[in-house]
Amino acid sequence: MADPVIAIDAMGGDRAPGEIVAGARQAAEAGYEVVLVGDPAAVGDTGGVPVIPASETVGMAEDPARAVRTKKDSSLVRAAEAVRDGKADAMVSAGNTGAAMAAALFRMGRVKGVARPAIATVIPVPGASPTVLLDSGANVECSPAWLLQFAQMGAVFSRVRCGVALPRVGLLSIGEEPEKGSPLVKEAHRLISGARGFEFVGNVEGRDLMSDAADVVVTDGFTGNVALKALEGAMKFAFGAVVGALRSPGVGSSALDALMPLAAEMDPDSHGGAVLLGVDGVCVISHGSSSSRAIVSAVGVADRAVREGLVSLLADAVAA
Amino acid sequence: MADPVIAIDAMGGDRAPGEIVAGARQAAEAGYEVVLVGDPAAVGDTGGVPVIPASETVGMAEDPARAVRTKKDSSLVRAAEAVRDGKADAMVSAGNTGAAMAAALFRMGRVKGVARPAIATVIPVPGASPTVLLDSGANVECSPAWLLQFAQMGAVFSRVRCGVALPRVGLLSIGEEPEKGSPLVKEAHRLISGARGFEFVGNVEGRDLMSDAADVVVTDGFTGNVALKALEGAMKFAFGAVVGALRSPGVGSSALDALMPLAAEMDPDSHGGAVLLGVDGVCVISHGSSSSRAIVSAVGVADRAVREGLVSLLADAVAA
Repeated sequence: MADPVIAIDAMGGDRAPGEIVAGARQAAEAGYEVVLVGDPAAVGDTGGVPVIPASETVGMAEDPARAVRTKKDSSLVRAAEAVRDGKADAMVSAGNTGAAMAAALFRMGRVKGVARPAIATVIPVPGASPTVLLDSGANVECSPAWLLQFAQMGAVFSRVRCGVALPRVGLLSIGEEPEKGSPLVKEAHRLISGARGFEFVGNVEGRDLMSDAADVVVTDGFTGNVALKALEGAMKFAFGAVVGALRSPGVGSSALDALMPLAAEMDPDSHGGAVLLGVDGVCVISHGSSSSRAIVSAVGVADRAVREGLVSLLADAVAA
Repeated sequence: MADPVIAIDAMGGDRAPGEIVAGARQAAEAGYEVVLVGDPAAVGDTGGVPVIPASETVGMAEDPARAVRTKKDSSLVRAAEAVRDGKADAMVSAGNTGAAMAAALFRMGRVKGVARPAIATVIPVPGASPTVLLDSGANVECSPAWLLQFAQMGAVFSRVRCGVALPRVGLLSIGEEPEKGSPLVKEAHRLISGARGFEFVGNVEGRDLMSDAADVVVTDGFTGNVALKALEGAMKFAFGAVVGALRSPGVGSSALDALMPLAAEMDPDSHGGAVLLGVDGVCVISHGSSSSRAIVSAVGVADRAVREGLVSLLADAVAA
């Protein structure tokens, strides 16, 4: 196959366009086929990376649906259209998450059979396989049938992205017994128990997001978002506190050096961002403070998803 | 006032009765008035701590409501009855959390005006004031009006337990803007905005549980339980990974020594357990793996709650 072309939203993110353009250049140097989408005057020297022009920018705090509806010439909307029109095979944005979702959904449409797209986030767990958490924020309220589809899509994603042959899928709840949890969780438990294509390990708890209990954890977008941010907050706090303690007099610098590999493994910039599963195209959403390195990681994730045929695998999974 | 008498469930917890009885003895030696509740033959030498006899034990995995209904002579039920009957001023249990809640609710009843009791957990945040999270698991589904009461009760608890004069209360959601979140959160935001007795800081996110953004974080029991366990899992993972890295050759033991104060501050055994707010009596629920030290901490929390008049302060707050 021809190399996948990855459209990068040049204007999205706290450090756009500078870090985004730098990331695009680095990705091109690393051999990826990339194209930037944004205001040609603002992107500056792209080092030969082509630019799809877009005159508008969606702000990080704008209302997503309205922004996508009114800013038809925004970099986000044009990036999604590039995928829809075949000018690119995938899009990457570090911009407004809700707007990126809305742009992808409205322009690319849904995969046939998918009720609702979900955001899948990869949580690194050094020493064990990473945990794919979905939905981590796309759908505030969910039905049991959607959670079943999240399980099916999450299992495909765990295979494609993390190389897990038969993913173990857990349902996020407040106790391991099937009768524990909300009405949503109890009904979803029943539905997912009858599904195929993965190993259902039943209910898991918040602590299992960073354990080896499951490769995929399924939940609604409200709970998933809260849990993910609780994790991020705790890890940030813990490493900050540890580094602070180790800077005390009498502790050698070898201690901080010894933590570097762990810090690198946990660094979100090396993980490539979340993926919106269920839209008819590959859409990678990198975090708002993405550096150029985060963009390169996200491009790598997008490239691999296209090469592995993620979208058609998702369609097969929800049709099964 | 006379010293508060704290009834300790001798049979509840993974390490009962040994560690529980040891904790009761240590608490008595430290000057607290304690009484054990359990099977006199099983508790062994109590070092003079009196025992209220109870022939049955509620298992950690038993169905809470059924256990409390059928095991009328269980240590949990008898402990709650001791508070109801004035033989004790507070109860402490490291046993089945749901059953402890049910026993307290059915035997002590609710504080007048409280719709639903909630579990308040104190999350230590070294370098900032601790965060009180409620509900951390009592009510899987909640109404907006209950969340308002959780805010009122949580503010009182933050004052009594953590010494915060005017607590900042946040509502757990997936974005800071008032329009972000589930229908429950949006309506609760409106209700809490009009309340008094604390400073409402609006929506907070999962990451704020371990930041200085709020002194009290209010949510439903499903989300609260998932978030709390996500935090616990992340902290356990982080410290495990850090200690592992610091044990590598070439790192001196001074590094691990430097982390001891932090580890001690984060140690759940030093924090005394969660408190069930809204029942007509003081009920402290210590974690299942409680050591004798955790029991002493829990007794200290219970003693202080009685001395400060927590229950009548809660009644005043919800009546305001």
